[in-house]
Amino acid sequence: MVTYRLLIEYDGASFAGWQIQENQMTIQGALEKALYVLFRQDIRLVGSGRTDAGVHARGQMAHFVAPRFIEPYRLRKSLNGLVPATIAIRSVEEAPTGFHARFDATERGYRYRISTEPFTLERGFRWLVRPVPNIDQMNQAAHFLVGEHHFGSFCITQSETQNRICLVSRAEWTSEATEGFYCFEIAANRFLHGMVRTIVGTLVEVGHGKRSPESLKTILAAQDRRRAGYAAPAHGLVLEYVRY
Amino acid sequence: MVTYRLLIEYDGASFAGWQIQENQMTIQGALEKALYVLFRQDIRLVGSGRTDAGVHARGQMAHFVAPRFIEPYRLRKSLNGLVPATIAIRSVEEAPTGFHARFDATERGYRYRISTEPFTLERGFRWLVRPVPNIDQMNQAAHFLVGEHHFGSFCITQSETQNRICLVSRAEWTSEATEGFYCFEIAANRFLHGMVRTIVGTLVEVGHGKRSPESLKTILAAQDRRRAGYAAPAHGLVLEYVRY
Repeated sequence: MVTYRLLIEYDGASFAGWQIQENQMTIQGALEKALYVLFRQDIRLVGSGRTDAGVHARGQMAHFVAPRFIEPYRLRKSLNGLVPATIAIRSVEEAPTGFHARFDATERGYRYRISTEPFTLERGFRWLVRPVPNIDQMNQAAHFLVGEHHFGSFCITQSETQNRICLVSRAEWTSEATEGFYCFEIAANRFLHGMVRTIVGTLVEVGHGKRSPESLKTILAAQDRRRAGYAAPAHGLVLEYVRY
Repeated sequence: MVTYRLLIEYDGASFAGWQIQENQMTIQGALEKALYVLFRQDIRLVGSGRTDAGVHARGQMAHFVAPRFIEPYRLRKSLNGLVPATIAIRSVEEAPTGFHARFDATERGYRYRISTEPFTLERGFRWLVRPVPNIDQMNQAAHFLVGEHHFGSFCITQSETQNRICLVSRAEWTSEATEGFYCFEIAANRFLHGMVRTIVGTLVEVGHGKRSPESLKTILAAQDRRRAGYAAPAHGLVLEYVRY
């Protein structure tokens, strides 16, 4: 038995999300199918977390336990040959026995990209936000998210028991080299379902003057999804990295 | 009569190149159609140069002479509403009478992107080069292209009379933030038909040890297309900027 750790990139537009589902093309499903072809038995692949339909990843991490050893370099090559072109296994490493891609992760980093000006080359990866929002106000609002908070207002899933506390270490809009391109970088120990997109949608409402930056404090305190804004579209979001 | 200057971005994958052609979707064709809808008369759009089928642009420049004045901001908005989503007019400016997008251009800058490792998110914009080439050797070879040379060996078009002298101010491979991503930046006063792709294809052959870096001197001196290597695929190439 050998534990392997995979660094995976995928184009979310081609999938109904990470998690395996019957009759749906999912990233986990495509990878488990490839593992079956290689090892001739069912192998469970565990991701660092799920990404929703349409959300991309440049740095998703996953692990699986294989019944026999294959050279990591050969494993990467074989898997890349077996998955659709919209998935790329960037690296394969042997991991210590017991390594867990989800439980051992200490930080996840996402980026959400927008443009305030017309563009086309990145249209599958960037949200066109018009009219031009006030980025300074969005940054003031984002600042209130940093730290340990209850993020129930930014979570789609209905459940009273589950832990909603996240420690956000970074939440910041930066301007990119191209005029009108902005990137929201957010890092936390964990993320809730729909959290980044709901944060981005709410911050854009701040940028459009529909909410004040300070309103983020009230939204957090409410612990109620109905208090936050619309979720931003999935295609602007990329899971950039997972740290262990 | 008003002269306008446009800064245009387009996804080359959707077009049979820049230049208007009967029964083909071209960038010039799509834009002239939009101009006809706006001004109700045929208007000739002049680009800084042609790009081939599949080649992208982030900074193509073009001009046209309009029969009447429209506020540049409104013109940009209207044109963006009339062209396919694979074209974006990034800016519209009034230009001095007599401005010519092609004749007045003093420098063009292209980038060609490759990856030596599996990837997917940029698959429409980056060429996968395997086995891993020697980038140092490719840079040594590229160095011989800088300066004023006869580029007949890198030109597809057959013609004995046309000027083949180009002044190359930059030709360099740089490594990008993502592991295995490299970008070839080349700038010159002018480019010949197929020139950048033939240069990239030839440099990759150097990187694979099929030619020496010094062989570039011999290829340039031969002034014969048959001496250079294969043309790299179109989808890795982007016209980044045009200077005036």
